[in-house]
Amino acid sequence: MRNPSSTIVAISTPPGKGGVAVIRLSGADAFAIADRVFIPRGKAPLSARPAREMVFGDILYDGERIDDGLAVRFVAPGSFTGEDTVEVSCHGGLLVTRSVLEAFLAAGATMADRGEFTRRAFINGKITLTDAEAIGDLLEAKSLSAVRLASGASRDKLTKALDDIRYDLISLMSSIYARIDYPDEDLGDFTDAESLSILEGVRAKVEKLLSTYKTGRAIREGIRTVIAGKPNVGKSSLYNAISGEDYAIVTDIEGTTRDVLERTVPFGKVTLSLLDTAGLRETDDPVEKIGVSRSREKVGEAELLLAVFDASRPLDKEDYELIEMAKQLPCPTICVINKVDMQTFVDINEFSAHFEHVVTLSAKSGDIDALREMVEQLFLSEELVIGEDAILSSSRQVGALLHVREFLDGAISAYRAGLYADCASSDVELAIGALGEVDGKSVSDEVVADIFSKFCVGK
Amino acid sequence: MRNPSSTIVAISTPPGKGGVAVIRLSGADAFAIADRVFIPRGKAPLSARPAREMVFGDILYDGERIDDGLAVRFVAPGSFTGEDTVEVSCHGGLLVTRSVLEAFLAAGATMADRGEFTRRAFINGKITLTDAEAIGDLLEAKSLSAVRLASGASRDKLTKALDDIRYDLISLMSSIYARIDYPDEDLGDFTDAESLSILEGVRAKVEKLLSTYKTGRAIREGIRTVIAGKPNVGKSSLYNAISGEDYAIVTDIEGTTRDVLERTVPFGKVTLSLLDTAGLRETDDPVEKIGVSRSREKVGEAELLLAVFDASRPLDKEDYELIEMAKQLPCPTICVINKVDMQTFVDINEFSAHFEHVVTLSAKSGDIDALREMVEQLFLSEELVIGEDAILSSSRQVGALLHVREFLDGAISAYRAGLYADCASSDVELAIGALGEVDGKSVSDEVVADIFSKFCVGK
Repeated sequence: MRNPSSTIVAISTPPGKGGVAVIRLSGADAFAIADRVFIPRGKAPLSARPAREMVFGDILYDGERIDDGLAVRFVAPGSFTGEDTVEVSCHGGLLVTRSVLEAFLAAGATMADRGEFTRRAFINGKITLTDAEAIGDLLEAKSLSAVRLASGASRDKLTKALDDIRYDLISLMSSIYARIDYPDEDLGDFTDAESLSILEGVRAKVEKLLSTYKTGRAIREGIRTVIAGKPNVGKSSLYNAISGEDYAIVTDIEGTTRDVLERTVPFGKVTLSLLDTAGLRETDDPVEKIGVSRSREKVGEAELLLAVFDASRPLDKEDYELIEMAKQLPCPTICVINKVDMQTFVDINEFSAHFEHVVTLSAKSGDIDALREMVEQLFLSEELVIGEDAILSSSRQVGALLHVREFLDGAISAYRAGLYADCASSDVELAIGALGEVDGKSVSDEVVADIFSKFCVGK
Repeated sequence: MRNPSSTIVAISTPPGKGGVAVIRLSGADAFAIADRVFIPRGKAPLSARPAREMVFGDILYDGERIDDGLAVRFVAPGSFTGEDTVEVSCHGGLLVTRSVLEAFLAAGATMADRGEFTRRAFINGKITLTDAEAIGDLLEAKSLSAVRLASGASRDKLTKALDDIRYDLISLMSSIYARIDYPDEDLGDFTDAESLSILEGVRAKVEKLLSTYKTGRAIREGIRTVIAGKPNVGKSSLYNAISGEDYAIVTDIEGTTRDVLERTVPFGKVTLSLLDTAGLRETDDPVEKIGVSRSREKVGEAELLLAVFDASRPLDKEDYELIEMAKQLPCPTICVINKVDMQTFVDINEFSAHFEHVVTLSAKSGDIDALREMVEQLFLSEELVIGEDAILSSSRQVGALLHVREFLDGAISAYRAGLYADCASSDVELAIGALGEVDGKSVSDEVVADIFSKFCVGK
């Protein structure tokens, strides 16, 4: 393992050519190292300048000026990492940026590992695990909703929701401990009935938080969406209309789409992980056969099925097979009646008998607003406002929170069975531990502090 | 043309994913626009914070928080552009960066044109044309020498050298004007002999500066270098050894290299624009024929010829043809005797009779230090130290300076011919104008100010 006290350096801006590049330095020796490389013009060294003030100066490499730029220092703990930090803005050429980086390495800094600045921020308690995940999401965000979901506003709400749950559990825990360790003291603690009520309240909060994941996932990760339909109903046109590009080659020849195309695209407020599949039909062409079998597999993993029908041709055996298949799938299906701009040979009312969600459109025209609204309605909770409500967005968070719920259920059962509080206490403790896994906050110190805060001074 | 008073915005960091991106805003409304988008946490608006102080806060788009980050403002003229400027550091995701940019556009900023920040810096007198060129070079620099040549240190030296020349010419000019306009005043001006001496001094300075271009060009743009030799002497191996990569396919089959490969590579302190050519021999293969004819063309444009000979084979007719061709070229030739690691069948002394510069090496081993030193010696002036001396690096600068020299020659001829000072004055004026084209500094105001500074107050 790397020495955590080393001073790390990295180019923080994207690689490539730009007007400006930012090189970031963090660690105990950040100021001393920066003073060797960055020389403010006609002024005191950077380390003697006020924190957070941008200073113009020269950048030296082995004593030779290679660039000029701006530098600013942040004094621990008032920085992103919580350590002494220096940020230098230099000219954004590939080689000049690398040369400035090398100058810092030559002056005693160590090359930062991937994500090490954020890891240090986490270790130093500046951000939680959920914050770190959200920052990662922010860099990858593909829609404005995803940006908002990963933004500081949303992060703060999630942190607060988890802190609420933690506070309840810690209060309960400290009450239980106090009664176990000091049975003769009157500590004003909760009765068993009160404890049970607190636990049930916490469980409801956890449940509510878990229910937000559908929305979070729809925004962040993408809804695994399969577009199915017999050949030539316009699946590729629909795929293109949704992804906004001529990604799949659209032709009028049956069986054109042989490979499973997959693409994550923003679609209104949600993200679709879109699978365009080969036609779901029997074929003798061996290449196409692979495509068809793959597409059947994909349908099984779908979270949303877009069943596409061609309004310009009467329904046939294959269409009815798709209707039957859709009914057997556990995921929601939207029935998409395509080519409504042409003369229609289908009775649109007939579809309503089979599908809860029916939309008519012309994929070729690109006007698919009705479909977008329907998908948003299906996957976004109307009650949740991004940036206003805590929304889970990672499966890791969900996994840890499911553990919390499991331990809460154990504790609730213990109380209901009339067992002594210390039987429930181990489950509550485990729940707090599992909660710590959600946002990475260690709790043992908090518990201790909370317990002893209840005693008088000198006791 | 764009309204020069508009407030422009752009992502200043390279496009792509990184930890941090910088969005830069410049213009009269920069602070007002920034206040709409960037909200410092629990503090006064950015426009009320001290200049150059980095402030943490939230970034809003249409009133919704999309990111948090740091912002800093620079008050005109104390900024790169000379205008009010705000720099916002946000998270470096592709979409989040674009969203922050859009937030500024929505708040009233205009998308900056390519290079517009630097153009405004030039218009506002913050940098000269030569500075602007050097900044462009810095972004493109491919060797550490090129970085140093484009750095602020070198820029300052060039600016100073041009200012020196300008000062001399302006002094002379104002003296001439004063004598023409106020013939009866005793203004303590130069005699014709003094004027001539000043002009000759200036001409020598211009000449000296022009002589630095060989070095500047060798570092910055690259020396057009042709590697020539009969088939299988190891031209491609030499090409690879110089470029440091297996760029050309090396085989032992004669006539392998059919295309002219061109690549700009750093080579020690200089840059080579390297041309690997098809063997210079007659061939019946039509494809190879094209390669051969192209390679003959390239030799004519060369600034450096590396004539390669195979030490493991006795010299033959083709080798002697190359020796004769090299003698006829105007550019310097380095005779490279390759494969000296094998048994040698050539008399190395024989080459010294034909070539001033001879180096022996084994291109396959990659040890070509001797060649590198020889190239540096040929193209870098020993008297010039990068960062210490003014060095011209662009052909545009050279072109403008050649005009200056031409006008100086005209003025000198006029004085020598005993013509009146006003005949010389127009040439001096033209020389000042041409000098202004080198660094873009307008001079008319300076001339006026300098003239009138010689008069007493109230005159």
